[in-house]
Amino acid sequence: MLYDKQTIEQMDSRYRAHFINALTGYKSANLIGTVSESGIENLAIFSSVFHLGAHPPLIGMISRPDSVTRDTLANIKQTGSYTINHVGSSFIKAAHQTSARYDEDISEFDMVGLTPDYRNGHIAPHVNESPCSLSMMLREYNPLEINGTVMIIGEIIDVYVEEHAIRHDGSIDVRSLKSVSVTGLDEYHSLSGPIRLSYAKADKTLDVLE
Amino acid sequence: MLYDKQTIEQMDSRYRAHFINALTGYKSANLIGTVSESGIENLAIFSSVFHLGAHPPLIGMISRPDSVTRDTLANIKQTGSYTINHVGSSFIKAAHQTSARYDEDISEFDMVGLTPDYRNGHIAPHVNESPCSLSMMLREYNPLEINGTVMIIGEIIDVYVEEHAIRHDGSIDVRSLKSVSVTGLDEYHSLSGPIRLSYAKADKTLDVLE
Repeated sequence: MLYDKQTIEQMDSRYRAHFINALTGYKSANLIGTVSESGIENLAIFSSVFHLGAHPPLIGMISRPDSVTRDTLANIKQTGSYTINHVGSSFIKAAHQTSARYDEDISEFDMVGLTPDYRNGHIAPHVNESPCSLSMMLREYNPLEINGTVMIIGEIIDVYVEEHAIRHDGSIDVRSLKSVSVTGLDEYHSLSGPIRLSYAKADKTLDVLE
Repeated sequence: MLYDKQTIEQMDSRYRAHFINALTGYKSANLIGTVSESGIENLAIFSSVFHLGAHPPLIGMISRPDSVTRDTLANIKQTGSYTINHVGSSFIKAAHQTSARYDEDISEFDMVGLTPDYRNGHIAPHVNESPCSLSMMLREYNPLEINGTVMIIGEIIDVYVEEHAIRHDGSIDVRSLKSVSVTGLDEYHSLSGPIRLSYAKADKTLDVLE
């Protein structure tokens, strides 16, 4: 079925938001933890966190500049500090609830029932319930002219991850962490049936590992 | 378990690549289809495709400038055209195999056994086997100074998606497309058990939809 440019343009805006947001397939589900200079904590769910590089270890994410994420962006700019926390299957509803519009003097941690945790001198709070949580230092704050979104680039400082999930080659069994994935605006997935494949070479057939 | 900055720096580079690439959780798995001005087709798997906005419909992706993706980048720059194709569970191995280093005069479509398909006047080839395939027009080509990667921003022109997967509200049942997700460098997942949640409001309990 073809949906051409004109058909997409004529979609109702909410319908189009559902449709376009689903086209990139499975996305990571992460909670971004921050705190303002005056000590007000903030927690917001993001589905646009992406790997940027391993050395130095860099992660990017995209944010709209609107009211739901305004506090997150302001706190990151003020403090240069944030955390990235995998959403675990045990707290999907709490994580999704952070996308509601709360006043800026309200902590989403309190509102949704997750626990802020300050670790190793890092300014921003971690989510205690998260199976994989990263201390991030802001490296670049780039408004994108093309549509007014903001690209945040941060460097990974500390990584907290359940030890059982680390394999001998450094890879992480994300499924065993019970992290979830999101598609579209509101659909959360637990995963099953991973297949690991061998390093691809031009003259070699791939093997299934393990 | 804490892995601090120093521990991460001291990791063996391959170990670190596995480790850091897994930290963003579940990623989309997409094949990028391109063709050079001289007509040589190219196909490359990307796990860094991300949603940038719904109106206009924009998608970003990150690429290393190295030899494996060099042809993809050159073709996009030359023609301004590419396709994004969901990796389906029936061709995971073929998709992963495109990450091997083939010579530039070789078509990965031929090498891995996927079928190029030219649609609706779009310059770049689609992957015929893909359950969801997008015609993309290059909007921005941005080398990122921070680590030498390249950010490609494109506008969605045409969308080809299996009709049964489109719900009444515009959302897409990605699971029914049998698209896969990737974690780390080489681990592919089919999904089960999605939970859709209602629009989050500050004063309302979330409902599970459907």
